[in-house]
Amino acid sequence: MLRMGDEEVILLDFWCSMFGMRVRVALAEKGVAYEYKEQDLRKEYKSQQLLEMNPVHKRIPVLIHNGKPICESSNIVQYIDEVWNDKAPLLPSDPYQKAHARFWVDYIDKKIYENGRKLWAEDGEEKDAGKKELIESLKVLEGELGDKCFFGGDTFGYVDIALVTFYSWFYTYETFGNFSFEKECPTLMAWVKRCLKKESVSQTLPDSEKILEFAVFMKKTYFTKSS
Amino acid sequence: MLRMGDEEVILLDFWCSMFGMRVRVALAEKGVAYEYKEQDLRKEYKSQQLLEMNPVHKRIPVLIHNGKPICESSNIVQYIDEVWNDKAPLLPSDPYQKAHARFWVDYIDKKIYENGRKLWAEDGEEKDAGKKELIESLKVLEGELGDKCFFGGDTFGYVDIALVTFYSWFYTYETFGNFSFEKECPTLMAWVKRCLKKESVSQTLPDSEKILEFAVFMKKTYFTKSS
Repeated sequence: MLRMGDEEVILLDFWCSMFGMRVRVALAEKGVAYEYKEQDLRKEYKSQQLLEMNPVHKRIPVLIHNGKPICESSNIVQYIDEVWNDKAPLLPSDPYQKAHARFWVDYIDKKIYENGRKLWAEDGEEKDAGKKELIESLKVLEGELGDKCFFGGDTFGYVDIALVTFYSWFYTYETFGNFSFEKECPTLMAWVKRCLKKESVSQTLPDSEKILEFAVFMKKTYFTKSS
Repeated sequence: MLRMGDEEVILLDFWCSMFGMRVRVALAEKGVAYEYKEQDLRKEYKSQQLLEMNPVHKRIPVLIHNGKPICESSNIVQYIDEVWNDKAPLLPSDPYQKAHARFWVDYIDKKIYENGRKLWAEDGEEKDAGKKELIESLKVLEGELGDKCFFGGDTFGYVDIALVTFYSWFYTYETFGNFSFEKECPTLMAWVKRCLKKESVSQTLPDSEKILEFAVFMKKTYFTKSS
């Protein structure tokens, strides 16, 4: 059990979850040591600890801080920012800027995951609609980024964390969707490169090839409709 | 234009939106005067102001504070709590309790509206699934409430605001779904009665009969599939 002083911090997670990665990046930014516990997410193999710590959604990531669970990634990142507030502020302190950041994280939560999932897990019309809406949404995000260095301005923060973890799936999206992010969203890709210069990001994001392998396996095993 | 000192506060809203009502209840709790601007939500009639202030989602509620827009109801309520922080605190100050409150508002956002909509706007299997999941979700919320007076404990707050505005639609849900909330969720209904003792709630929630009329009209006009 890793402890920092009196603290006990445990993360229930799954290696290629972009939501789990958000928590890992935030903890790395804050320099918080923690015990990582990889979870089996198959219904019948979920750990007793996961079921007890997140009885409502029964899903990762769950941060367990001194025995108390915090669930849902954007909520966890806000919690991390509030508790370990001595370094690397992630959310702005100004209420308007904070609301602005929350708005964009909510936008990412509503638009990116589900459209990305459709792109690799579905076929036909649904796949096409997912691809179209994913690219459109990322262009909206490019508009919001504009010529800023990071979404929050000069420093890497809450919105950057929420979005950059999806980059690890970009290769999978491109492969299944037969398109290029570099061509579609060059401004966003330049931002990705800036984010990757941060150790918290580069050391957290898994290898894109491994994620593609995982997606291919998942599609074959769970998503392909028998004809 | 209503002003409080140097403040200009405008709310773009629609009378029977449970999301808009959340903002109205929060502003009433804080005693903030504002200009209410009812919006026409039909695509071709949306106001220039709504399109300019919420270009991403183009929907209400939008709070415009000194010319700057804040969008998405749970985000707006948090903003209100942070800006007008001299009275009626809505979110707890402790980071863990705050994360706990945010978790439940997120749960309400994910479970209640869409299942309620299916119940009155859809038919057949989809309607039945909506009814079942709506009642199940409210029972989960009853479990979280337990024997507390309000979701946050002794005082009315963020989670209470997020959920109580749905009460104005309960009569519509019961009528379309042919069931009784009093029978299904007695603990929650006792909580509703406590909330209604607050003027901020009782003076904000519209008449249930009018909402039923609106739902019947909407279903006939927009949702009934031609056979």
